[in-house]
Amino acid sequence: MNPIRIEKSTQLKPKPEQQSLGFGKHFTDHMFLMDYSSDEGWHDARIVPYGPLELDPASMVFHYGQAVFEGLKAYRSVDEQILLFRPDKNAQRINHSSTRISIPPIDEAFFVEALQTLIRVEADWIPSMEGTSLYIRPFIIATEAALGVRSSDHYLFAIILSPGGAYYEEGLKPIRIFVDNHYVRAVQGGTGHAKTPGNYASSLKGQMEAKEQHNCSQVLWLDGIERTYIEEVGSMNVFFKINGEVITPELNGSILEGITRNSVIHLLREWGIHVSERKISIDEIMRASDDGLLEEVFGTGTAAVISPVGGLFWNNRDIVINEGITGACSQKLYDTLTGIQYGKVQDKWGWTVKC
Amino acid sequence: MNPIRIEKSTQLKPKPEQQSLGFGKHFTDHMFLMDYSSDEGWHDARIVPYGPLELDPASMVFHYGQAVFEGLKAYRSVDEQILLFRPDKNAQRINHSSTRISIPPIDEAFFVEALQTLIRVEADWIPSMEGTSLYIRPFIIATEAALGVRSSDHYLFAIILSPGGAYYEEGLKPIRIFVDNHYVRAVQGGTGHAKTPGNYASSLKGQMEAKEQHNCSQVLWLDGIERTYIEEVGSMNVFFKINGEVITPELNGSILEGITRNSVIHLLREWGIHVSERKISIDEIMRASDDGLLEEVFGTGTAAVISPVGGLFWNNRDIVINEGITGACSQKLYDTLTGIQYGKVQDKWGWTVKC
Repeated sequence: MNPIRIEKSTQLKPKPEQQSLGFGKHFTDHMFLMDYSSDEGWHDARIVPYGPLELDPASMVFHYGQAVFEGLKAYRSVDEQILLFRPDKNAQRINHSSTRISIPPIDEAFFVEALQTLIRVEADWIPSMEGTSLYIRPFIIATEAALGVRSSDHYLFAIILSPGGAYYEEGLKPIRIFVDNHYVRAVQGGTGHAKTPGNYASSLKGQMEAKEQHNCSQVLWLDGIERTYIEEVGSMNVFFKINGEVITPELNGSILEGITRNSVIHLLREWGIHVSERKISIDEIMRASDDGLLEEVFGTGTAAVISPVGGLFWNNRDIVINEGITGACSQKLYDTLTGIQYGKVQDKWGWTVKC
Repeated sequence: MNPIRIEKSTQLKPKPEQQSLGFGKHFTDHMFLMDYSSDEGWHDARIVPYGPLELDPASMVFHYGQAVFEGLKAYRSVDEQILLFRPDKNAQRINHSSTRISIPPIDEAFFVEALQTLIRVEADWIPSMEGTSLYIRPFIIATEAALGVRSSDHYLFAIILSPGGAYYEEGLKPIRIFVDNHYVRAVQGGTGHAKTPGNYASSLKGQMEAKEQHNCSQVLWLDGIERTYIEEVGSMNVFFKINGEVITPELNGSILEGITRNSVIHLLREWGIHVSERKISIDEIMRASDDGLLEEVFGTGTAAVISPVGGLFWNNRDIVINEGITGACSQKLYDTLTGIQYGKVQDKWGWTVKC
């Protein structure tokens, strides 16, 4: 792969206040770009001033949705290092997603090098306040200007960076979830296992109705075939602790293979907790709740790391989990994972990568 | 709605040769744009020189796929009028799609007016050779620059135009279709009934494999639940003529409500042919073929109008339909619909609209 050309911005933006960063609202001074054409393959890797992309209105991404993305964070560690968490997994996953969407793969080592190079250029943008981080959004879009349903001959791979505030400002906060019988996120044979924009577009209406009609902050998606088996929560993987055992939906082709999911399974097993990856139905969860065996429910994802679920609303039944407070297992997973990410817990797993 | 501001291009492009237009490759001198913000609603409708869209790399369309589109054609009629075919249906459908994808609706009369105004500006671009037309692509994309899975507060509605050659240069040509057991286009509860980019992204890999591995030019999609019932062919609706009756999959939430589909049903019924909109399984079709009752199969869509299917390949079975030649019913539908579109057949249905 060619070296990365760097063109520095001549006018740097003022950095936003760390107290009010929010999520995905501010973007740094530079971005990484690389082009693909059928003739040249991936070429012209460059870091340039952050600014608008000029795209022909016929660019295929607008019409046929050929696009994939990733999400991860850079953390300023307690000893002032810059740490990434398992970026090799994001590299693998973007290629997995690209395969499903007929986008050409990127060299995985180069993907990580591109992240690292951009983050080094933007190191001053990584916030230092407790719980803050620099969110990293790599994405690929089809840029050929042609109508007609087929794979594009041209793509743009971009990485943008956004400093983000603490997800939880006052400790973990359980959320209330709407179990959706009506909308379906994805089905086997579709694109649910790929991180592609269409999956998210399809989830918006259910999310909105869950909020407006049921005062729930997220949706729990059921499978599209029997409308019975648990898939994901919002855009997170989901775990259920029932009578001492932790259960999470198996990778069945319609759910995303989360990197936090994988790390959580790893840690739980190390701690001697039995983890099953298998089909689990909403009925089984309701029964466990009735029997007093549903101990904890939590989502896992890059943004929240661990998102405890305090209540489920399904078919007019409202169940409360662990009295609506964060369970011990959720808390320990959160503390351990964020501990590793911020360099407070020794990384004996080799999960962190320095920039 | 505000009047449409028109800013003419000072340098017009040379028009491409009508013999070699192809599809979706050339774009005209101007495009229609209109912005939406939560504060102002839809505003600033304008026709401006065709050129790149400048979009922040964080624009939501790139990440969460919030977008919808339409497709229709302007025809130069035999008496030198410019005709549109049922544009009110496209206006209705873009709003139907937008509702599913949480995009604000557009005034339907204004949608048609915008098409007409742009086409009048670009009238010289409508080709006149037999079978040619001006393809019209209205689309809406989410333009707010923010990461975070939610509906955008900003959108762009655009219309671009592309002169297109005859779909069939030497008369209708039956295609061979691969019946896909592996990939699924859409499922009930998902977005299959909306014209949104994600549906097309999800179809690319199956289409590519059908071509490369089975020498089939399109995929016949089965339902995602039982993998048994017919959904669509490629990006067309599909019809089966069995023992004198015409059957097409019912509008079940996972297939697109095609405007050509609707027109075909209307014409067939007028001609006294019984049309059923119902579930139809691939087994039923294979049985009909075995019994010598499968008379015709054809796809319907804006691009091809009628696309006769000459063969189906399913589970290593290769069946030939009507000896691989275009059936009488397919041909009559094609001749009538294109006849109406080009003003050769008197439009007693009120389907054509002048520009």
